[in-house]
Amino acid sequence: MAAYQVIGDWGTSRLRLFRVEGETIVARLQGPGIGTVGSGAEAAFAETIAPWLDDGLPASVTLCGMAGARDGWVEAPYADCPADAAVWRTAATRFDWRGVPVTILAGLACTDEEGVPDVMRGEEAQIFGALAHDPALAQGRHLLLLPGTHNKWAWVEDGRITAFRTVPTGELFALLRDRSTLGPRGAPVDPADEAAGFAEGLARATADQLFHSLFASRAMQLRAGRSPGWAAGYLSGLLIGGEVAQMLAHMAPTEEALLIGDARLCGLYAQALAGHAVRAAHRDGDACVLAGLGFTGEINP
Amino acid sequence: MAAYQVIGDWGTSRLRLFRVEGETIVARLQGPGIGTVGSGAEAAFAETIAPWLDDGLPASVTLCGMAGARDGWVEAPYADCPADAAVWRTAATRFDWRGVPVTILAGLACTDEEGVPDVMRGEEAQIFGALAHDPALAQGRHLLLLPGTHNKWAWVEDGRITAFRTVPTGELFALLRDRSTLGPRGAPVDPADEAAGFAEGLARATADQLFHSLFASRAMQLRAGRSPGWAAGYLSGLLIGGEVAQMLAHMAPTEEALLIGDARLCGLYAQALAGHAVRAAHRDGDACVLAGLGFTGEINP
Repeated sequence: MAAYQVIGDWGTSRLRLFRVEGETIVARLQGPGIGTVGSGAEAAFAETIAPWLDDGLPASVTLCGMAGARDGWVEAPYADCPADAAVWRTAATRFDWRGVPVTILAGLACTDEEGVPDVMRGEEAQIFGALAHDPALAQGRHLLLLPGTHNKWAWVEDGRITAFRTVPTGELFALLRDRSTLGPRGAPVDPADEAAGFAEGLARATADQLFHSLFASRAMQLRAGRSPGWAAGYLSGLLIGGEVAQMLAHMAPTEEALLIGDARLCGLYAQALAGHAVRAAHRDGDACVLAGLGFTGEINP
Repeated sequence: MAAYQVIGDWGTSRLRLFRVEGETIVARLQGPGIGTVGSGAEAAFAETIAPWLDDGLPASVTLCGMAGARDGWVEAPYADCPADAAVWRTAATRFDWRGVPVTILAGLACTDEEGVPDVMRGEEAQIFGALAHDPALAQGRHLLLLPGTHNKWAWVEDGRITAFRTVPTGELFALLRDRSTLGPRGAPVDPADEAAGFAEGLARATADQLFHSLFASRAMQLRAGRSPGWAAGYLSGLLIGGEVAQMLAHMAPTEEALLIGDARLCGLYAQALAGHAVRAAHRDGDACVLAGLGFTGEINP
């Protein structure tokens, strides 16, 4: 066997593979998301990894994310919250692919005090990666927020994920921006207008303001000369601000949060959190997911 | 000229024409919505009304709705709130079509205490029609709610529309039901499941609950055996309940509301209002729009 390992994150919209030699990531490959391959997950994996197979098979493959979903490659269970990293790693599914040991890491499941279930697949790797990076996070109680299509709000206590909540604000925003009569309706979006709109939407956002203020996105275009870009920003500010206000209203008071993910999007959430006197730190999502996959060395390239 | 008049409602998605002879509606025609005819509004009108022209031209044509929008047939202004029926009728646009006097009724505009504008085109005819039907409504202060794609919440005081607010809950619901990962995703919807989901969404809905509870629509399908129909109902209950809770939180207390429009949809809003101890009466939207167009006789057929 060749002296390399493969770790990867196979989400709904893309597969990312990292080639690890010794303590270094030496190469990356990208393939189709699990949401697009239907029942052809194994073939899609084989095709994506093919360029590396000229050097022989990898020593191991470790994947997180939707690869373990029911419609993924091989179903991996959910570990139930509260769960620490050890419990989560133990719940992984293991099998052989062409003689190579493959590990698909588990998702996480939780149930709130009213009996409503929730699930994640992939973000738990980022959260446990963040904990591995930062020993201070593994002690005491912390709020972590991973914005994306389906945002995850997670509470970590003494190194265990005790509860989390999925909030599909990213999906809602994309629908309103791209497919509703409220957004730019395909018109070009000027970034300065968008920033001004975001500030205005955020200023208006409160926990009980969404329905009340949504139509202003269109009415201000019709009657107050606002641009399509302004509307895109306004919708973003109103939704992010509304989400943050509502979520904070439903939890114990907190003064700090850790944002994990895309820097620009995390910056918008940091603005919204600041409006509630919550200080936000930020960690890169890639660094966290790699740490969650067990990689602690250098990222190069 | 023939002894008939034409009144009609030309909205975004359809044109409805009513033929009035004496005090009776004797026939109806339906044509394309103003949103689909581009710059061909006059041609679309002529084609729709053609079957009646064999009897000669009508004595007059009166239209309300998006026919008067900037991209409509001939632009009619907005009357500013507060406005009573006389002010509104005076603001209409009048012109000749093949020698026939055509009236396109005005829309309404208002600006809230924070300077945010709002507009309506068509619903004002229903509101003034309801006032014409019911003299009690023309005295004192009343809340009227017209649910649809873009709901209108309107306040009427001593016969004047003093303020209103557009809430695009119908559009939001359609996006979430038909185009999001939260809804039935095209699967068949069982009506009994949908009713159960509506009750559950409505029970969960509060003014600050939408973001918090939205994803349960998907998670309950994934993990708690709920059906696609349940999800459709849950989303409807959560949105309608959230809208009603938020809107009532932003206005002076009220014990009564008048719902105008589709009976089934108004029934869902009546349930949500009842949860806040607001009694709702209902009036048929067609009867109201016809009264707003000046027709006070019998509807037959």
